[in-house]
Amino acid sequence: MIIGKVTGSVVSTRKQDNLVGNKFMIVEPVSIMNGENKQIVAIDNIGAGIGEMVLVATGSAARIGCNLEYAPIDAAIVGIIDDPPQGLK
Amino acid sequence: MIIGKVTGSVVSTRKQDNLVGNKFMIVEPVSIMNGENKQIVAIDNIGAGIGEMVLVATGSAARIGCNLEYAPIDAAIVGIIDDPPQGLK
Amino acid sequence: MIIGKVTGSVVSTRKQDNLVGNKFMIVEPVSIMNGENKQIVAIDNIGAGIGEMVLVATGSAARIGCNLEYAPIDAAIVGIIDDPPQGLK
Amino acid sequence: MIIGKVTGSVVSTRKQDNLVGNKFMIVEPVSIMNGENKQIVAIDNIGAGIGEMVLVATGSAARIGCNLEYAPIDAAIVGIIDDPPQGLK
Amino acid sequence: MIIGKVTGSVVSTRKQDNLVGNKFMIVEPVSIMNGENKQIVAIDNIGAGIGEMVLVATGSAARIGCNLEYAPIDAAIVGIIDDPPQGLK
Repeated sequence: MIIGKVTGSVVSTRKQDNLVGNKFMIVEPVSIMNGENKQIVAIDNIGAGIGEMVLVATGSAARIGCNLEYAPIDAAIVGIIDDPPQGLK
Repeated sequence: MIIGKVTGSVVSTRKQDNLVGNKFMIVEPVSIMNGENKQIVAIDNIGAGIGEMVLVATGSAARIGCNLEYAPIDAAIVGIIDDPPQGLK
Repeated sequence: MIIGKVTGSVVSTRKQDNLVGNKFMIVEPVSIMNGENKQIVAIDNIGAGIGEMVLVATGSAARIGCNLEYAPIDAAIVGIIDDPPQGLK
Repeated sequence: MIIGKVTGSVVSTRKQDNLVGNKFMIVEPVSIMNGENKQIVAIDNIGAGIGEMVLVATGSAARIGCNLEYAPIDAAIVGIIDDPPQGLK
Repeated sequence: MIIGKVTGSVVSTRKQDNLVGNKFMIVEPVSIMNGENKQIVAIDNIGAGIGEMVLVATGSAARIGCNLEYAPIDAAIVGIIDDPPQGLK
C-alpha cells in the first residue's frame, strides 16, 4: 500500500454501470512513496476528506478487498492515517 | 485508476480472436498522473472520442470489470470525466 | 496494452515444462509508451516477425487471455498493428 | 520480491473492517532494488522490527500468500533476511 | 518477462511457512530491460547458477505458473537463456 494525501475528486456521469455509486478521489502519494507526478484516482468507501492522509491499496486488492470484485477498480482508499509520521509529506 | 486524454486509436486486423470487436484507443495520462512518455492502449466500451478526458482502469480490473475476463486486455476506458479539474492537463 | 516493435528473440532450452512450445520475442515499446531501456520478453502466438509493430498485453491478461492460465507468462503479443500512426516510433 | 529495511509504522483507526488486526510497516527498498523515494506500506505477520532487513512480496501474492485473500492488501513482509549481502544497503 | 543475470542469493530463516523450500536468488535485469537499481528477488526452481542469464516471470504468473498458487511469491526464474543476444548485458 502507499500513503497519500487526498487532493480532490472527479465526477464521471458517463461511466460503466458497475462503477455507479463510487466516489473517485485524487490522491497524491507522499514524496517518499513515489516519484513526482504519480497521482492516482482511487475509490473511497471510508469517507476520506480532502487534505486527509490515507492508505491506498492498488491492483486486484482494491477490487477484491473492497467487495467490488467485478468492478473496473484498481485503487481504493482503505484507511485514514491517524497521525502521519514526520517524514510523510 | 488514472485520468488521461484520448489522443488516437490503432487498428489491428491480425489479432487474437478474443480481441475481435474491441476498439483500441491511445490514452495519454495527465501530467500529474504519470511521467512523460507513458501513453497506453486501452479498450473503449464507453464511446470516448479523441480529445476527451477519460478514467482508465489497468491490470486485472480492465478484464474482469469490463466483462472480458478471458481476453488479453490490461487497460480499459471506464468513464468520461465530466469537468476536468484545473490541474489535470 | 502497449505498442512496441519486435527486435529479436531468445531461446531457452532449460525451462519450466509449462513453457514448452512458446516463442519468446523481445519487444521494444514505442518511445511514447515507455521510458528508455524498458524492453520486455513476450510470448508470440500471432506469428509476429522481427521489425513488426505489435500490441502487447501484460500481467494476468497475458496468461488468461492467451489460454495459458497455468503458465508463468506475464507478457504476450496479442495483435499486429496495421498501420502505425506517425507518432509511434 | 524485494528486500527492504523496516523504517517505521503507521496506525489507521478508521479503516476497512477486513484490515483490522494487521500491522502496517513502512519499508524502504534497498537502493539496488528500486529507485529513490519508493517506500511502501506492507503488513507484517512475521514480527519484523524497525531496522530489520525483510523480504517483501507485492501484488496479489501479498493477499493470497498470506491467507488474506479478501483483504485490500498489496504488500506483505514475508521473511526476515538472515545476513544481508554487502551490496544491500 | 524480463531477462536478467543472477547476481547472488539471500537466506531467510524466519519466514512464512509456505515459503519453506524455495531458493531466493537476486536477479539484475539486463540494462535494456529496466532502469538502473531495479534488481529483484526471484525464486528458482530451474537450478540457475550465479552469473547465468535467466528469464524471470513476475506478478501472479510467478505463483500460478510455478505451481505455488498460495505462496507469497511475485517473481520466479522460469528459464535459462541459451545464448544471450549481443545487446543483452
